[in-house]
Amino acid sequence: MTYATPSAAADALKATLDPSRKSWIESANNPLCDFSIQNLPFGVFSDPRNARNARNTGRRVGVAIGDAIVDLAALHDAGLLTLPALSDDAAREVLNAAALNAFMAAGRDVWRSVRVQLSDLLARHDDNGSDNDNANANAALRDDAALRERVLVPMADATLHLPVDIPGYTDFYSSKEHATNVGAMFRDPKNALLPNWLEMPIGYNGRASSVVVSGTPVRRPNGQLKLPEQERPVFGACRKLDIELETGFFIGCGNALGEPIACEAAEDHIFGMVLLNDWSARDIQQWEYVPLGPFNSKGFATTISPWVVTLDALEPFRVQQPAQEPQPLAYLRHSGRHAFDIALEVRLRADGAREATTICRTNFRHLYWTMAQQLAHHTVAGCNTRVGDLLGSGTISGPTEDSYGSLLELTWNGKRPVVLKEGGTRSFIEDGDELTLAGWCQGDGYRVGFGICAGTILPALPVSE
Amino acid sequence: MTYATPSAAADALKATLDPSRKSWIESANNPLCDFSIQNLPFGVFSDPRNARNARNTGRRVGVAIGDAIVDLAALHDAGLLTLPALSDDAAREVLNAAALNAFMAAGRDVWRSVRVQLSDLLARHDDNGSDNDNANANAALRDDAALRERVLVPMADATLHLPVDIPGYTDFYSSKEHATNVGAMFRDPKNALLPNWLEMPIGYNGRASSVVVSGTPVRRPNGQLKLPEQERPVFGACRKLDIELETGFFIGCGNALGEPIACEAAEDHIFGMVLLNDWSARDIQQWEYVPLGPFNSKGFATTISPWVVTLDALEPFRVQQPAQEPQPLAYLRHSGRHAFDIALEVRLRADGAREATTICRTNFRHLYWTMAQQLAHHTVAGCNTRVGDLLGSGTISGPTEDSYGSLLELTWNGKRPVVLKEGGTRSFIEDGDELTLAGWCQGDGYRVGFGICAGTILPALPVSE
Repeated sequence: MTYATPSAAADALKATLDPSRKSWIESANNPLCDFSIQNLPFGVFSDPRNARNARNTGRRVGVAIGDAIVDLAALHDAGLLTLPALSDDAAREVLNAAALNAFMAAGRDVWRSVRVQLSDLLARHDDNGSDNDNANANAALRDDAALRERVLVPMADATLHLPVDIPGYTDFYSSKEHATNVGAMFRDPKNALLPNWLEMPIGYNGRASSVVVSGTPVRRPNGQLKLPEQERPVFGACRKLDIELETGFFIGCGNALGEPIACEAAEDHIFGMVLLNDWSARDIQQWEYVPLGPFNSKGFATTISPWVVTLDALEPFRVQQPAQEPQPLAYLRHSGRHAFDIALEVRLRADGAREATTICRTNFRHLYWTMAQQLAHHTVAGCNTRVGDLLGSGTISGPTEDSYGSLLELTWNGKRPVVLKEGGTRSFIEDGDELTLAGWCQGDGYRVGFGICAGTILPALPVSE
Repeated sequence: MTYATPSAAADALKATLDPSRKSWIESANNPLCDFSIQNLPFGVFSDPRNARNARNTGRRVGVAIGDAIVDLAALHDAGLLTLPALSDDAAREVLNAAALNAFMAAGRDVWRSVRVQLSDLLARHDDNGSDNDNANANAALRDDAALRERVLVPMADATLHLPVDIPGYTDFYSSKEHATNVGAMFRDPKNALLPNWLEMPIGYNGRASSVVVSGTPVRRPNGQLKLPEQERPVFGACRKLDIELETGFFIGCGNALGEPIACEAAEDHIFGMVLLNDWSARDIQQWEYVPLGPFNSKGFATTISPWVVTLDALEPFRVQQPAQEPQPLAYLRHSGRHAFDIALEVRLRADGAREATTICRTNFRHLYWTMAQQLAHHTVAGCNTRVGDLLGSGTISGPTEDSYGSLLELTWNGKRPVVLKEGGTRSFIEDGDELTLAGWCQGDGYRVGFGICAGTILPALPVSE
């Protein structure tokens, strides 16, 4: 699919965001469904019907729509999807892949073209009558049961995998409310924010190897615990296991070593966003983190949601970021709106409980530092980023006590436990608890949602002495 | 090459360490040559004669010997090298590779078999008379000028590349002298060591993307600097650019998520070691590092030496680590000797100077925490490691003022500049300076050396406002 002019391409992209567009896949039109035709997030899946692909893993690239996954490789094989500037063989390799990296590396024109083609293919015909070619392709898929069977995989039958092979994972600390709460709890309530916090998006390198996809069980870590009544630390299971409600974004287009990314241009490097739970062992963290930062308290697992929601899909939900005072240094300045209105929730379900309790409701828009500022800061000293790098927002806390993004804050370090719907309370996470993050943008009659980011806690390994 | 019994394999491996063994490549027998026949380190190279390999990068696996590189792919093609349990095609793929990862992933039996075969092939015939097959292969290479031409590449003609595709880089802080110096300078000379330091090898996640090979120029970073006389930070070029003299080790065999590596078994997971310069922007670091650790002050570049010296080659230089008091917690205990006697130096050559000045002489054996303890600690909470992960020692400082592994310590934060041989002094690194790390184990009449780890500083990018 090529366009006569850049403005034709922009118009086609804009049409994919039309709130009135509906899909002939009816489940996508439910106003509470995360995967509307306006969303079209990318992921990696496998299913029992196609246990093997060219590389023998069975994994391939898909797009979520309603309760189904569009198998992009199958769509391409059917001649209904083209990847601009890629040969058929190259496109097949990009789509029959165990991670989105090659697809991301193909560049923004390819991501956008696929988005436009899918939106046209999946739209209801009456919304799509202006272009005969598109209408014909749309009907070819919609009206051919055998083809639909090959191309549309029921999400319930599929396994969702880590969507990206992540070369680097960086985690920021960009919520002013979160940093203030932590500072007030552990340092000085009157000077809760450290002096550097308002000057830069503070961040640190996380552990990429232990990023796992939603649904992966998480084992409670063992580690050194410094108990106040004992002179030396003891070794044992974490007693203050916590979540951190975050989002993350993936680099779709990196930068070379020594060539910083300007703040104004930073969003061009971002492919899309996921939900991210930065599991944290608070007691291990408190003992280990001075002076080089968190290590074992974070490195045991980080869970992300399987569907990457593109910045293109989030465009209608762009809002103004919080005012920044003092004005940041020049390299951190950008004009316009760089926050997004993304509702976020945390749910806790105890082992055996039927229902989860929502323990936090907040919004991504509260974040003080923007993704663009995070990326500009990350690279300003010359650090290179690579396709697939994951950058976490840091815990997203809102202004009210029920909008804090960690149990540490919600229970004020265990002092005021949260009460669960079916009885019981929680200061920190217990074995068997399932923690779920959810997030979505609420449009007029439709959602652009992230799905969920969930994990259940397994008991710690026994400690032998 | 297979052995009738495990003890035959152990004997063959032991023979490669015989100090009296000499090579028919005479340059390897120079007692000051880093690349003796006892060493046989692995790396990745390309050369103008073979600009393309199967994967079209021209890079392939080599072993350093004297002033030459053994082209393992060419040796394999000549029928003089076999990789146990790998088909010819698989071996060819492992050896015609742009990184050592596949070779490392092939497992320790393969690394050791290649070491034994190379030692036999390259030994002087009179040292190698007991095995007719070996003697024949040895002569086949030694006496065939055309074959030698294909297999032995002059190191001077070759380009050495980053030897490993590094999925994760972790840096420790394991020199007691270094931690004490830094604590005395920036905190309290009477309580220089933080309380957790003697209980665990403190470490943090570094930035893997910016690890570069020796010889790569390093651009002075820009960043936020907090000057004492100004209320707010300014943005500009680092004024306190420093080296950190370190070694690093590569994971040859990782662990699964949630399955810690026991301290006693940790060395089985290590492929080998390199020199590592953890370039540090001290002024950026001091302003940014609280509370999550160093970020932009370290992420702009880390340089490693190109040849990976295997633990097998280091075996004769194993020594007792420093006494640890208090005794570490059980998960950090191991019996036996786990330090290595590796002489280390730092040299500084100003732009235009003929000769470098050696500004530091120290030894790896001073390190308080061992590599085994670092790896056990890294994984004890469940963090997984992967083939090719790089773990840095942290700055290695000795007990005397000329044995400190950073300019920060050598000049005591600039208060007593080091004097250069050809005139001038240095508090920190200036543009155009070339900094070189060197390291070697001194055997009886031979060395097992690391070569060098060098980088020259380019001026910072201009700052626009």
